[in-house]
Amino acid sequence: MTYLALIRHGQSEWNLQNRFTGWVDVKLTEEGRKQAINTGKALKETGIPFGAAYTSVLTRAILTLNLALEEMDQLWLPVIKDWRLNERHYGGLTGLNKAETAEKHGEAQVKIWRRSYDTPPPTLEDPSAFPSLTDGRYVAGVDTPVTESLKTTLDRVQPYWESDIAPRVTDGENLLIAAHGNSLRALVKLLFDVSDDEIVGVEIPTGNPLLIELEDGTLNVKSARYLDEARATALPKLP
Amino acid sequence: MTYLALIRHGQSEWNLQNRFTGWVDVKLTEEGRKQAINTGKALKETGIPFGAAYTSVLTRAILTLNLALEEMDQLWLPVIKDWRLNERHYGGLTGLNKAETAEKHGEAQVKIWRRSYDTPPPTLEDPSAFPSLTDGRYVAGVDTPVTESLKTTLDRVQPYWESDIAPRVTDGENLLIAAHGNSLRALVKLLFDVSDDEIVGVEIPTGNPLLIELEDGTLNVKSARYLDEARATALPKLP
Repeated sequence: MTYLALIRHGQSEWNLQNRFTGWVDVKLTEEGRKQAINTGKALKETGIPFGAAYTSVLTRAILTLNLALEEMDQLWLPVIKDWRLNERHYGGLTGLNKAETAEKHGEAQVKIWRRSYDTPPPTLEDPSAFPSLTDGRYVAGVDTPVTESLKTTLDRVQPYWESDIAPRVTDGENLLIAAHGNSLRALVKLLFDVSDDEIVGVEIPTGNPLLIELEDGTLNVKSARYLDEARATALPKLP
Repeated sequence: MTYLALIRHGQSEWNLQNRFTGWVDVKLTEEGRKQAINTGKALKETGIPFGAAYTSVLTRAILTLNLALEEMDQLWLPVIKDWRLNERHYGGLTGLNKAETAEKHGEAQVKIWRRSYDTPPPTLEDPSAFPSLTDGRYVAGVDTPVTESLKTTLDRVQPYWESDIAPRVTDGENLLIAAHGNSLRALVKLLFDVSDDEIVGVEIPTGNPLLIELEDGTLNVKSARYLDEARATALPKLP
């Protein structure tokens, strides 16, 4: 068996304030740090020897991974950071909380942006308000988005998954991926073959590793479970 | 100007107990964590844009780097971990404190092992006592040492420096290296062209970044200073 552990970062400051975060580089809350440490404890208990870890270039995912690896006594694992595992870029919604968004755009429109698979929000009016969206972690000349739907998020997660991560999985390496609600949704959509309509309803809990068992040499999911059962959410049916 | 910051890990549990640590994977003390955070603060204040960080596969160096990067708001920097930046392997002295070593081998012999450039201690009698010396972080088939002098430490630091790190420096990239007393001594010996006799007396303080300024396109050291001046030690003369 080959294992893949998908880890959504622990609770962030803006999860708590219910703001559209996207690519803004917010920190973890104390609760988020605890979730990350518990993630490490739970992964350690599985006894699975992981070979490497992938994460985004956003602090909340990297810190979640680092805290988990420290708890696993495996800080020495190679860690690869790539923007294509970033959260969905929320464009013009970035930084707004639920009430502010409804006031600006109307409840109905907000529901569409939240619930539709392929409707991106407008782009940011004032990108300079969030310097971390375009700073040195993004290589000049590489075409990064200015707003994304879940579909366009998947459109950049998928090629990276296929070129860099999936071949290691089919080679039998156990891997960790510490990322975000929507980049992990994209991976779950690919692995579980979930429909466009169904995937928007899949909620991956923060700081609760989803351990996926795959048939050796394939990307066929054999079983999947959240390690913190008390905080588990419904998983899509296995394909 | 191009910058290279050499960071010796913060105080470890065995620094405090005065034990030969080498490749044993000990943790940082609370003081060591504070030193790492202060390292990050001091590096942030320099305003230098670093492009990547190198470290060993030992927890105390990686954790020091991670804590510093978090403080710098630059956890997203690429981090490359390699055993060739590990501490000197202390062979049969591993785990012994000063008194135990003197009792077992005599004061005079211990002084030779500590102070000589090229005399390695005996190999470990019972390697199973320290499983982290040979665990999954070391790739099977790669020839790792069983004991080292400062000279043989340099003999494995130097090729890695020359193949992987130095070319990036001469390309003008500012780099961080978080490592250990003796792997950093090896780098200081190379960069400052220090004699065998003199290098054994160079003491790099824990958790106090040594900021080295190099002439662009070269490995010529233009200036060097410890960022925490109150805890600085004497540096070798510039070549």
